[in-house]
This record gives sequence, C-alpha cells and structure tokens, in this order.
Amino acid sequence: MNRIRSVRKRNLSVRKKSLSVRKRIVAKVWFFLLSLLLGSSIPVAASAGDTVYVSRFGLSPDSRQNAVKAVQQALEECRRYAHPVLVFAKGRYDFWPQYSVEKEYFESNTTAINPKRCPIWISGFKELTVDAGGSSFIYHDRVQPFTIDHSQNVFIKNVSIDWDIPLTAQAVVTDTSAQYIEIRIDAASYPYILEGGKLVFVGEGWKSEWWGTMEFDAATHMIVPQTGDAGVLGDDWDKYTAVPRPGGDLRLKYPFARKPAIGNVLVLRHSERDHAGIFITGSTNNRLENIILYQTAGLGILSQYSENLVFRNLQVVPNAGKGRYFSGHDDGCHFSNCKGQLLVEHCGFAGLMDDPINVHGTAVQIIERRSDSELVCRFMHEQSTGMEWGHPGDSVGFIDHETMQTVAAGRITGFTPINRQDFVLHFKQPVPRAIAVKDALENLTWTPDLTVRNCLFSFNRARGLLISTPGRVVVEENTFESSGSAILIAGDANQWFESGAVKDVLIRKNIFRDACLTSMYQFCEAIISIDPEIPRLDARTPFHRNIVITENEFHPFDYPVLFAKSVSGLSFTDNTIVRSDRFKAFHPRKYMFTFQACRKVTLSGNRLRGDVLGKNVRLEKMSPGDLSMPQENNQPAFTVDHD
Amino acid sequence: MNRIRSVRKRNLSVRKKSLSVRKRIVAKVWFFLLSLLLGSSIPVAASAGDTVYVSRFGLSPDSRQNAVKAVQQALEECRRYAHPVLVFAKGRYDFWPQYSVEKEYFESNTTAINPKRCPIWISGFKELTVDAGGSSFIYHDRVQPFTIDHSQNVFIKNVSIDWDIPLTAQAVVTDTSAQYIEIRIDAASYPYILEGGKLVFVGEGWKSEWWGTMEFDAATHMIVPQTGDAGVLGDDWDKYTAVPRPGGDLRLKYPFARKPAIGNVLVLRHSERDHAGIFITGSTNNRLENIILYQTAGLGILSQYSENLVFRNLQVVPNAGKGRYFSGHDDGCHFSNCKGQLLVEHCGFAGLMDDPINVHGTAVQIIERRSDSELVCRFMHEQSTGMEWGHPGDSVGFIDHETMQTVAAGRITGFTPINRQDFVLHFKQPVPRAIAVKDALENLTWTPDLTVRNCLFSFNRARGLLISTPGRVVVEENTFESSGSAILIAGDANQWFESGAVKDVLIRKNIFRDACLTSMYQFCEAIISIDPEIPRLDARTPFHRNIVITENEFHPFDYPVLFAKSVSGLSFTDNTIVRSDRFKAFHPRKYMFTFQACRKVTLSGNRLRGDVLGKNVRLEKMSPGDLSMPQENNQPAFTVDHD
Repeated sequence: MNRIRSVRKRNLSVRKKSLSVRKRIVAKVWFFLLSLLLGSSIPVAASAGDTVYVSRFGLSPDSRQNAVKAVQQALEECRRYAHPVLVFAKGRYDFWPQYSVEKEYFESNTTAINPKRCPIWISGFKELTVDAGGSSFIYHDRVQPFTIDHSQNVFIKNVSIDWDIPLTAQAVVTDTSAQYIEIRIDAASYPYILEGGKLVFVGEGWKSEWWGTMEFDAATHMIVPQTGDAGVLGDDWDKYTAVPRPGGDLRLKYPFARKPAIGNVLVLRHSERDHAGIFITGSTNNRLENIILYQTAGLGILSQYSENLVFRNLQVVPNAGKGRYFSGHDDGCHFSNCKGQLLVEHCGFAGLMDDPINVHGTAVQIIERRSDSELVCRFMHEQSTGMEWGHPGDSVGFIDHETMQTVAAGRITGFTPINRQDFVLHFKQPVPRAIAVKDALENLTWTPDLTVRNCLFSFNRARGLLISTPGRVVVEENTFESSGSAILIAGDANQWFESGAVKDVLIRKNIFRDACLTSMYQFCEAIISIDPEIPRLDARTPFHRNIVITENEFHPFDYPVLFAKSVSGLSFTDNTIVRSDRFKAFHPRKYMFTFQACRKVTLSGNRLRGDVLGKNVRLEKMSPGDLSMPQENNQPAFTVDHD
Repeated sequence: MNRIRSVRKRNLSVRKKSLSVRKRIVAKVWFFLLSLLLGSSIPVAASAGDTVYVSRFGLSPDSRQNAVKAVQQALEECRRYAHPVLVFAKGRYDFWPQYSVEKEYFESNTTAINPKRCPIWISGFKELTVDAGGSSFIYHDRVQPFTIDHSQNVFIKNVSIDWDIPLTAQAVVTDTSAQYIEIRIDAASYPYILEGGKLVFVGEGWKSEWWGTMEFDAATHMIVPQTGDAGVLGDDWDKYTAVPRPGGDLRLKYPFARKPAIGNVLVLRHSERDHAGIFITGSTNNRLENIILYQTAGLGILSQYSENLVFRNLQVVPNAGKGRYFSGHDDGCHFSNCKGQLLVEHCGFAGLMDDPINVHGTAVQIIERRSDSELVCRFMHEQSTGMEWGHPGDSVGFIDHETMQTVAAGRITGFTPINRQDFVLHFKQPVPRAIAVKDALENLTWTPDLTVRNCLFSFNRARGLLISTPGRVVVEENTFESSGSAILIAGDANQWFESGAVKDVLIRKNIFRDACLTSMYQFCEAIISIDPEIPRLDARTPFHRNIVITENEFHPFDYPVLFAKSVSGLSFTDNTIVRSDRFKAFHPRKYMFTFQACRKVTLSGNRLRGDVLGKNVRLEKMSPGDLSMPQENNQPAFTVDHD
C-alpha cells in the first residue's frame, strides 16, 4: 500500500512550466523590441520562427534526465527551417550513451574503438546555430559530446562540457617515505577499486587502470619542474602495491625512485582516448564561441577534413569549482588534414594532458607501387587510420622518406579503401619513377592557413602549439607557459606521420613565460623547437621554410630559447629575452640558439635583460655563412661555435 | 601525439580469457564425473549442451561494462535449447538502461510510468534456468532488474541485486536543537543538491526531492519506537530550509516538532515506485532461490497473474557492506492476482520501506451496468491499473460495497479494455439484478494458496505479512519483528481495493518479538490485526472465515495482541504470551483481544508469562455468546467487556 505523493510534485512541475513559458514570452518581447531598435538594415541571423527551444521537447534544465532524445528531436525540428537556432534555457543538462547515435568514425590521433557514441549528432546541416545559453552539459560514460559531420555554417556557443566522473583522476599526496607514498583520492569524484594491489578507476560503464602521472603544485597549479615525461615517480613505479589505510588514504608500497611533494596533487592518468570532445569532420565554415571544455574522453576539439573554422573564447581548463587540476584527457584543439582558414583567438588552455593546439596533416606510406598510376598506401600511426585520406582532385606531395624532401607532386583521380589501414590512390599522370615503397605522401590540398591570437597556453603537459602546415601561419600576442616547448614545428614521415613542412610562419608579439620548458617531453629542444625528423639531414635541401620570430618576449631560466633544424629562411629579430631565476637550469642543451642544417638564418635587434644564460649560438651541419648577425642594431654579440 | 599503452592491457585480458576457459574446462570435467557418479537413474536438469555461458558473448565479470547487450544475446541463444541454463561466472555485472528492452507494463501497486526498462527480459520461455553463480548485479538509473513475462519453469538463482546509487537515501543525525537538525549524508552514495533550500537527491538520470523519513537506531537497526508513520520529525517538517555547514553537514533549519536522536540514522525516502525488482507476470512454475535484493526502484518481487511460485532463501535486506539501514524502496514480495501455490520459505526481510509480503487480489468497481451481461468496471487505485484483470472462464464474485459480502458469483466470457482504467466484462449468465454501480468485483479464479514458512520479518516500515486471499494459507515457524502489525488480514473494496476475504488461514508456531507494533501504521490494531474495511458492519454476515492462530509465541510490551473484525470461526489457542518491558506501552487500544462483529471465536489453552498487560477481551457489535473460553485447560481467565 502506498500513499500518493505525486500531487505536490505535479504542481511544482506545472509551476516550472509556466515559468519557462513566461521566460519565453519575455524573450520574444525582447527580441521584438531589439528588432525594432536595430531596424532592418542590420542583418538578423535568424527570424523568430527559426528558433527551436529544446524545452518544447519536454527537456527542462536541471531535470537530471537523459537529454539525448529531446535534443535529437529538436535537431530534427531544426531541419525544417532555413536558419535554425536551437536554444537551451540556462541550466544543467545530462547526456548518457542511451539513445545516442552510434556511428563508426575513424578519428585522427584517437584510438579506433567503435562505434562512437554521439549524443548530439549534427549531420548534413546547411546551417545551424546551437545556443546553449550558458548551460552546463554534463556527460556520462564514454561519449562524444558534439559531433559535426558534413555540415556547413554550424555555430555552437555558450556551453560548458564536463563529466561528473571524468576520464582522468587526481589525488593529493599525504605522506611519503623511502618505502611508500600515501595519497588521498576523493572517491566520489574519482571512484576506484583495488585489483591485485593496483589502483583501478571505475566509472559509468568503464574500468581503467592507472597508467601515468603528472605532479601539479598545489598552490600554483603548475606542473612541478623537471617532472613531465621524465617521470614523476621514477622508473618501474607501476610495481607498487596499493593498500588502503585507516581513514581512507591509500598507501602505495614501493621504493619509488622519485617522491612527489606532500600536499601536491597527482593527476592520475587512465583510460583510452576514444572520443573527441567536439568532433568536426567533412564540414565547412563552423564556429565555436564561449565554450568551456572541462573534460573530454580524448582530444578536445578534433577537426579533420574540414575547412574554415573559427574558435573564439574557448576555454579548455580544469573545473576549479570541482577542485580539479586537470582538464581534457589529451590535446586541446587538434586539426588534422584541414584546409582554408583556421582561427583560434581569445582561447585558454590549462591542465591538459597533451598539446593545447596541434595542426598537421597525415603522411601515409607507400607499401606497393601497383602501377605507374596506382599506389597502395598505408596509415602508419595506429591511432590515425580509416580516414578518407584523399579525394578526386586533391593534390599530393611525394616525400623521399630519408631526406624528407617533397620531390614531386601529383593529383589524385580516385581513392579506394582496402581496409582500415590500407588504400589505393589512383593518378592520371604517372607517378615519378623515383617514388618507391617506404616513401611517403602528403595531401597538399588539405593544408590550412592558421592564426592563433591572444591565447593563453598555461600549465599543460607536453608542448604548447604544434605547427605542421605549409599554409600561412600567424601566431601573435599569445602567452605561453606550457611545461615543455612553447612552440614545436616538427614534421615527419617516419614515426608519428604528422606531415606538413611549413612555408610561412610568423611568430610575433608573444610572451613566453618562465614556466616554458620546465619539463622534458619529446622534441623539446628549446622554448621554440623546430625539430623535424629527417633521417638523412642535408643543409642543401631544408625541410621547413620562412619562419619569422619577432617582437616576442622570452623569460628563460635555462639556456635554449630557439632550436631549429633544416629551415631555410629563419629570422629571430627584435625579441626581448629576460632572465628568470625562478627555476634551476637543467636542459642538456647549453646554447641559447642552435641551428642544424639551416640556411639563411638572421639574428638581429634582439635585446637581453638580466643575466641570460649562454648568449651563444651553436651551428651544426651548416655553413657559418648562413648565419647573419648584422651589427647595425643594438643586439649584443652572441658567441658562435660550430661542428 | 600519444604513446601506445594498450599492449599490457591486451595481455591482461588474454590472460583473463584463458583463465575463464580453464574454469569452463574444469567445470565440464566435474560435470562429467558427477554424471558418472549419479548415474542415469537420477534426472539431470540440463545436459552440458544446454548450458549457455554469458562469457561467450564477450561479457566478463568485473568489467564494469554495460552487460545488457551480451545478456540479451545469451538469452536469445538459450531459446535454441530444450533445457537452457544461462551461467554467469561469479563477479560483478553492471546493467544500464541503454539497450534494455523498453516495454509498457501496468504493474500492480506501482506508479504507471512507462515504458518500463528491462535489462534482463525473459519472455516466452518454456523453461530457463539462470544461475548467476553468486554474482552481484549492479543496476543503474531506474530499471527493472528481472522481468519474467509469460514464461514457464523459469528458475533464477544465486544473485544479488543492488544499485551503486540507490533510489532511497540515508543520513546520520549529527546535532539537534530547538531550531534545527543537522545531518551528514555520504554524498558519494547518496548524491544530492540543494534547490531552494530543499534537499533533492540526484542520481543516474533522475532527480528526486526528499518526501519521507524513517528513524533507525544506529546500533540495533531497529525503527525507533513510536515513530513510523506517526512522524519522525513532526508535522510540517518539510517547511525546513537546508543550509550546508562547514565540514559537509547539512543544517535543516526548522523548529521540528520531534527531534531524532543524535547518532541515529534517518532513512530519507524519495523517488517514485515505478519499477519492480523482479517482475513476474502471466507466468507459471517459477522459482527464485538464493537471491539477495539490496535495493529496488519499487516493489521487490512483484508477481501478478502468475501461478505456482516458489521463493526460497530470498533475502531482502540492507547492504551491510555499504553501511545501509534500508533495503528495498517498497514492499518485499507482492503477489497481486496470482493463483496456484505460492511458497515463501527461508526468506528474510529487513529495512524495507513497506510491507515485506502482501498477497491480494484487485477489486474493481462497477461504474456502469451496460446490460445484464455487460459491466463496465474501473480500476480504483491509481497505482493498479491497466492490468488484464479478467480472462474468459474466470470466475468472479460480486461484492456489495457496503456490507462487503460476496452476494453472487459469475463467469466471464470476455474482457475488453476501454482505457487504462476502465474495461468491459462480458458474462454468459445474467448478472444478478441486485448488483449495481459502486458495487465491486473480485476475481475468484486468481486467488492463490499461500505458505510462508521459516522466514524472518525483521525491522521494516509498516506491517509484516498482509494476507488477502481465500485460498489455503499457512504461516508457520516465522519470526516477526516488523514495526507495525506482524500480520494484517485486511480486505476492502472502498479504499485500496486490495480484495480477498480469507477462508482458511493457519498461523502456527511463529514467534512475534517485542519489536512488533512499536510504531503506528494504517490498520495496525494489534500484533495480529484482522481489519477489513466494511462500511456497514454486520455480525450476521462476517467477511473473513476460519482463522486459526495456534502454538505461537508473543512477546508484547503493549496491550493489543489480537484484533479481529468480521470473522466467522476464529480460534486463538495454545499460544504463549510473554511480557516484554523493553518499550513503553502507548497503543490507544487497551485490550489484549478485541473482537468486532465476529462469530465463533475461541480462546483456549493460552499461557501467559510475566505481567502481561490487559488480560482482557473487548467485544463489539457481537453477541458474548459467540466467544468461547473453555475452562478445561490451563488458560487464565480473561476479563471480558462489551458494548
């Protein structure tokens, strides 16, 4: 026997409903007044009739119910309009895998676990604005919050993305000794179990063993210097045995080679990168504004084979309200094989477990020269496969895999997948004779211009900005304090297969704070590290070209400011270098500037302040005549030595 | 850029797989040896070929992945065999709404929120054994763990059912004052938010305001005497304002009329009863064994329109490992409109928020006498609607709604639903003239025999065992300590519409501990309360018949041991009544025995120990000559008074 208690609840929900109706009316009145005020001369993006409220589909904010079905219905409704605007009343919305679109996507630099689960699946739209009104979208389990697939003019704004139970965990160090480390984990936020003495995180539909660690200073949220990929706990740290202590702490028993500081926060990395936060594929003219990414199951915003993207006021940062030190699981903005104009401005990145921005193409390897007009190619990186690499009409470059030189170009007439890894490329013109198995191809059509402006690259694992595109690149008025190199210009066709020799890079008016290069990661040779992987380096055939670094401010505590390999046309001019003594120099490279196999290098007009380290230049595998240091401006003399 | 870490994991999973293969081989060898030993003379329930392992469908224990799809596939596979046995390797399995069968079910005494989500949906089976091997099934969100729909010979065993985030919460009282109560809630187990100063629980896909409270003694787990539905916090308690305190406690600001004891545990009731734990409908010969129900979203095991059910070693109890004081959200075993033999033995019930066992039919009201052979009837209880109330051939009783007398019987030839509430019954023979609108019908075909044996009815809200069936009922060798009446024999066609005048009830060799009747709930007139609701009571036409209460042991601290209304043939013989002084008497009824409008009542051979209260009998609306108290045996004299 049960007493009926639903009446009061029903009244409550009626009240809520009438409130939201009132809000809608108020909004419409405002819209009307605003329209009068602005007059018809100013184009209004959408007529009132094009506005679709998700509330119409039974979805109220803060209901904690699965929003997926209602949002799908609202998106379907949007298809009926020419200029649809999907509007959420401000509040919290929850998204579960249930009812999510399940689709096989091969996502660049992402583990190919399929299907991807897409609670908000924007596919085949010619135009769409999603205005979440400052709402908080909370996701559950392993899902991809937003998917924009073969759509144009999609504009998403005013939303934060988070998980109640994120795919990364953290702990506070409560004690250390020669034999153990003790940590405290908030089990409500980061549920875990112990299995065979190992720390295993469990969440909504997943279980995942701890596999990596980052140490953050509790007060400053900075990654503790000289940790990073050099190891927070030392080698063989995963031989620990975890034992619960009275009071709830965990003792990790093992004579760890390195101990973190008591009170510091360990970010405990676990789980696969299997979904992006916002996945943009095959799409054009998309815009993201006022978006906070607190957490993702993999890369933050992954754009691939897309064109003309604007990201403005995007924050990929830890959720301070939840006491977190980490934000996304991996990269912040990852652009793979895009084209057109990419603009990232007024954005912030902190607490990421991988590079904040990475722009590159995907090099593929020739595994069979089937005929003069047919090459069988292979995706070489396990996490970048299955993509539609080429399209009829695409221009490709043929790269000698030893010299990394693009020795010829061609145009594709067809693309035929064989399986997830391999595909056939068809050419009208015969492929040059010299091109052979093991050589690589890059797609030259899918190479974007990039502008990164007024962004803050704060404390993140790995590097700040990775640039691998031959398009026009402008990096200006940003602030860098990523723990590795601030900017990496790499390029290789032998290991990561992230292609793209640069041809036109301007790095201007940025500030490189002293947190840069406090930890070591791959390719971190200097604050700005130009470090392509070229098996047979030759100064006569430089890989990169035309890089201008000017009017920046560097605050190094260590020697290396600029490392450059295989560049033709590199100028470092009118920069200010200010010594910081906040950290102890540790980098093995004891030169401010290192140039390897470069041509046409200029150092000019740079100012030094304080007792900057090194004041020296190292030249390797190149002629001293290729370094120009004009005396007419006030730059102090750098000592030069060479091999 | 990402480093590949999956190799180790893959090796681990391979190792696990080979272990489970080894286990399977060992199991098969044992099975073979056992078969040899037992010989062919003993029937073996299933041949080895009929065993289906869920592991074959990619489901491993403790994976934390959603088990629903694999279990569905395994169930489909089971359909291929004559004697299928579905086997789970021991461990934890998680079930989410995703992929669950969604089906409209109208479940008795359950809020009709549809569709029901059925992760394990056993439908249309002729035979099936599910052996969970001692596994723990953990459910998420609002779902129905097991659904047995139109299936025969289904046997489920060796499983516990629980939620990580249950649909009921609890708190510890940390402080009280004239102006407030302070409580501490483990937010990891019972996540909550404050909305407008109100405590609102939030879970996996739901949000639910606190609407009721039970106070449990921290040490004994007993419901604090004189609380129950009389009110733990006093009237208007829900006018409180909740404010968080430093340290995480919540202060509930309001001058509560009653304060709970500091240190005691408040069970905070919230959420709708919208899914059963195990739902059995239209099914026959089903068996449940070695099952623990730690939590459900509504009734525990709801059986309706089903026949011949055996529940053995079923525990509906709080999960002590999680420090819980509550178990299921509502009733334990609820039998509505069943027939055949119902057997409940070696079962335990504790921490339930409603009656442990309730057996009844559903009375319906006549709302229109369309013709002599057609009655339009209505389900009268909001939570019991939409069921297939009648089947051609069913025998029904016509009940005068004022005297509650079954004045005639008839046989149905057809049942036609009009909507969820109303339906037409068709009769071959004309319905008696006297039967009119407002009179009621009960289905006499769907009335079971019931045996409840060797069960423990421990501390639960409400009553212990509710009996409303004309079938043969045996209640023996149980122990009762439910906080209200231990046994209630009710029956009404005016309020709850739970039908079923009893005709043959034997209550024998049970122990009624002193916790019985420590709190007040509806119909709790004595430890055994026979309390049908009859608007026009008349001793000449008793409602219930033939109730024998013998050889039991009662430990009352208060007056009322037996209350009986409208029974013909009631004997209370050879029982022992032992005074307990653990609690203070408070019941308004100051008689040991009260008989209202009864006939043929016998009190004989009862023994009293200690200073039992009352030693008296109250007769109302009946002739003193209908009470027999033979002097030949050793029973002490009870004083008798009457109206």
